[in-house]
Amino acid sequence: MTAPLDELVRVLPEGTVVTDPATSDGYRHDSASFCAAGAPLAVVRPTTTEQVQAVLRWATAHRVAVVPQGARTGLSGAANAVDGAVLLSMVRMNRIVEIDEVDQVAVVEPGVINADLSRAVADVGLFYPPDPSSWEMSTIGGNLATNAGGLCCVKYGVTADFVRGLEVVLASGEIVRVGRRTAKGVAGYDLTRLMVGSEGTLGVITQATLALRPAPEPALTMAAVFDTTADAMTAVARIMASGLRPSLMEFLDSHSIRAVQAYRDMGLPLDAEALLIAQSDRGTLAAADVAAMGAVCAELGAADVAVAEDAAESAMLLQARRLVNPAVEELGATLVDDVAVPRARLVDLLAGMDRIAAETGMLIVCPGHIGDGNMHPTVVFDRGDPAAAERAQVAFDAIMSLALGLGGTITGEHGVGLLKRTWLRQELGETSYALQQGIKSVFDPLGILNPGKVL
Amino acid sequence: MTAPLDELVRVLPEGTVVTDPATSDGYRHDSASFCAAGAPLAVVRPTTTEQVQAVLRWATAHRVAVVPQGARTGLSGAANAVDGAVLLSMVRMNRIVEIDEVDQVAVVEPGVINADLSRAVADVGLFYPPDPSSWEMSTIGGNLATNAGGLCCVKYGVTADFVRGLEVVLASGEIVRVGRRTAKGVAGYDLTRLMVGSEGTLGVITQATLALRPAPEPALTMAAVFDTTADAMTAVARIMASGLRPSLMEFLDSHSIRAVQAYRDMGLPLDAEALLIAQSDRGTLAAADVAAMGAVCAELGAADVAVAEDAAESAMLLQARRLVNPAVEELGATLVDDVAVPRARLVDLLAGMDRIAAETGMLIVCPGHIGDGNMHPTVVFDRGDPAAAERAQVAFDAIMSLALGLGGTITGEHGVGLLKRTWLRQELGETSYALQQGIKSVFDPLGILNPGKVL
Ligand SMILES: Cc1cc2nc3c(=O)[nH]c(=O)nc-3n(C[C@H](O)[C@H](O)[C@H](O)COP(=O)(O)OP(=O)(O)OC[C@H]3O[C@@H](n4cnc5c(N)ncnc54)[C@H](O)[C@@H]3O)c2cc1C
Ligand SMILES: Cc1cc2nc3c(=O)[nH]c(=O)nc-3n(C[C@H](O)[C@H](O)[C@H](O)COP(=O)(O)OP(=O)(O)OC[C@H]3O[C@@H](n4cnc5c(N)ncnc54)[C@H](O)[C@@H]3O)c2cc1C
Repeated sequence: MTAPLDELVRVLPEGTVVTDPATSDGYRHDSASFCAAGAPLAVVRPTTTEQVQAVLRWATAHRVAVVPQGARTGLSGAANAVDGAVLLSMVRMNRIVEIDEVDQVAVVEPGVINADLSRAVADVGLFYPPDPSSWEMSTIGGNLATNAGGLCCVKYGVTADFVRGLEVVLASGEIVRVGRRTAKGVAGYDLTRLMVGSEGTLGVITQATLALRPAPEPALTMAAVFDTTADAMTAVARIMASGLRPSLMEFLDSHSIRAVQAYRDMGLPLDAEALLIAQSDRGTLAAADVAAMGAVCAELGAADVAVAEDAAESAMLLQARRLVNPAVEELGATLVDDVAVPRARLVDLLAGMDRIAAETGMLIVCPGHIGDGNMHPTVVFDRGDPAAAERAQVAFDAIMSLALGLGGTITGEHGVGLLKRTWLRQELGETSYALQQGIKSVFDPLGILNPGKVL
Repeated sequence: MTAPLDELVRVLPEGTVVTDPATSDGYRHDSASFCAAGAPLAVVRPTTTEQVQAVLRWATAHRVAVVPQGARTGLSGAANAVDGAVLLSMVRMNRIVEIDEVDQVAVVEPGVINADLSRAVADVGLFYPPDPSSWEMSTIGGNLATNAGGLCCVKYGVTADFVRGLEVVLASGEIVRVGRRTAKGVAGYDLTRLMVGSEGTLGVITQATLALRPAPEPALTMAAVFDTTADAMTAVARIMASGLRPSLMEFLDSHSIRAVQAYRDMGLPLDAEALLIAQSDRGTLAAADVAAMGAVCAELGAADVAVAEDAAESAMLLQARRLVNPAVEELGATLVDDVAVPRARLVDLLAGMDRIAAETGMLIVCPGHIGDGNMHPTVVFDRGDPAAAERAQVAFDAIMSLALGLGGTITGEHGVGLLKRTWLRQELGETSYALQQGIKSVFDPLGILNPGKVL
């Protein structure tokens, strides 16, 4: 144990600092493939804000890098270890401090699992919408630091839309409270939104005040199978332009359909090019909504349209979407991309992806949050073949380039982390990139917070 | 004309730079009372982004202060002239560049009047929710720079919630595009939200990409008169905690009721302590919604509950709220405050205000966006009496202090500007304030953009 670490161990409760490699090695990686991870100095698992302050004061004094971590379900390497860094795991700060029904806010520590919060607020008739597919595992702190999306953002928005205020420990160890508890407030620059999505590079979130909504009614689902992708995209455009407001709008391309059907018999047609799944949760109006969405699909020549009559049937129709991840993982190693484009450019994105697949000889499976134009093109390749891994990277990069060319973004919800760091500058341009570096320097002048990530 | 100004006149089209005091004097003030305004060097009214760049390059070269201006309806002095500054009026950049029904976005120049945009998108069945009461006059650029609220934010959110991306000219004259057109995106820090609400101190907004929604159905209204403020506050709390989602929820205190009734006979009872007005715009569900809200009020002993059956009756019930501003202006000079508190603390806010009124001997009229906890306590006093103006300022400050003590904010929607500059530090605390100063320096190292405002 190095001398400075000894100093940290002394000021924290026993068991907070873990240096045993058998344990700390388990904290080196998040869930991204092909992202480098360094050798950490230690894992530190604080239980209070004061302990987080102690860690950062110590880190500042000794110029030690600190990598904040939640559940490490991240898909961009943002939580990966850096050589010689302290891995600051926030999972033990997992109290729901307060749920207020009149103000419709929850105050939570960052280690609370998304599903635990969602269930706790549902118990009092409230609703915390952000629902990344990782919701049973990922933490609110990680969701905030990545500005996580999910299935219901097409209607309700992303994590950022539900944040009122944050308690943050800065690199210096100082505490700052940004934002507020009130519904509205415009005093000074919006530092809350600046923290959200900053991937652990500007400060450590130690408490969050989150906005809640009244619980929605159970959703009804419609699913439509299309012979051509173009027709499915036209259906998306028409539904979104029609005034209907789906509470979910998901897409499976032909490869996703076949992967799911191979994984489990869901009765999906193997020759279909596209499966569109949409929901409405407008109570007594939901049945009419999903019928109307189904009618749009039928009009556009959908081969098959199913409209669920109740919650059980609805869940079944959505099941195909939920099975894409495990089904695709059966096919080989994966590189999951996360581009978003304007809805009107989705046809071009999908056509371009076919071209990239052909040119690189790669299988690209493409499910996505189509209502938001946010797709997860997933390059699948043989784990044991280094040449394939290289071509996969070429395809992965070509997809980002394609999305930028279509007026889109390299990342809709997973973040930049390590994975897309070299691409960020290209999306932002030099002037904007320089502003971002300036902001980083204001918050973390020594550059000790999650160095080498994002910027 | 000073030599440097001559240089600017030469690079801009004729008529863009106005130095005639008869004209430029009209640009010195926004709509705030009791805020100092300096003597400007000139008014510049560009029509293109390139002209804005030329102004800022010139201003940087000569260290001239630049004050961006919209329609100058602001209520915090943020658009007021500074001695020797160029007043950069954006009102001639007023094109609606594009309205896209599939992506549900509008691209606009900053000088577009809010009402013009709202009507243009309504023509194609879409909806731009932010609706400050000044919507017939104020510009989108001003709305963005102040993060304006309005009547419908209780359901739909504030201006910031409808901004996707911005084109901004920095103090240096460089152009930067922040944000995006897509529904989602997490590439880098959120500079868009940082610009929104920055009151012209970080850059000049030259174009905005705004999110739209499908048009809502016409709203139905309910109005309830209460004998006690406490009962009205309980009704607000119960309605908001009930799962009902009013699309508007406004409040008139006893003084507002009497002022309106004196201004125009609306049949309002002069002995009532509170009038609550709420709407629902959920189409076929709206009638049941307003009936349910009315029932909550009746249960709590409201003296009178009116539920409108159609749009015309609804507009009439809302009229009382719309008349508060002109009615109160009849009473004397006004200092309009803009505090917000957690909904659960509204009773304490109103009780505290009565105390402040008694202690200072001032009339404090208090209408407000009660569903958001955002109130506009308005100190009314005799224009000709300097002692009264001083006591009004004491009352105004005491109200902010009260709101902070209740866990609230000094400004819910009007901004800091000049009016609340000395209060900002108190709300934010030293550490947060220093971060904000750091950010200002990153964007505007010479401090030429709207100096002396906000920070
Ligand atoms: C099966 C699966 C499905 C997924 N589905 C989705 C999805 O639908 N939508 C989506 O957006 N993402 C999804 N993800 C990605 C991932 O779950 C999200 O990015 C999630 O928000 C990460 O949370 P976490 O607690 O695991 O954070 P981590 O992965 O541990 O960390 C993520 C980032 O947050 C930072 N961080 C964590 N806690 C803090 C803190 N307290 N203060 C400051 N910084 C902190 C870390 O430094 C890192 O930069 C999925 C991942 C998997 C494995
Ligand atoms: C009768 C009345 C009712 C009102 N009701 C409301 C209400 O309900 N809700 C509410 O929030 N406000 C309200 N206001 C306040 C005011 O209308 C808002 O603050 C509005 O957003 C200001 O817009 P503007 O175009 O008049 O901007 P201005 O007053 O000209 O400027 C406001 C700020 O924006 C900056 N600015 C303007 N344009 C740009 C640009 N292009 N780039 C960068 N900075 C810029 C200015 O420097 C200044 O700091 C009301 C005002 C009046 C007079």
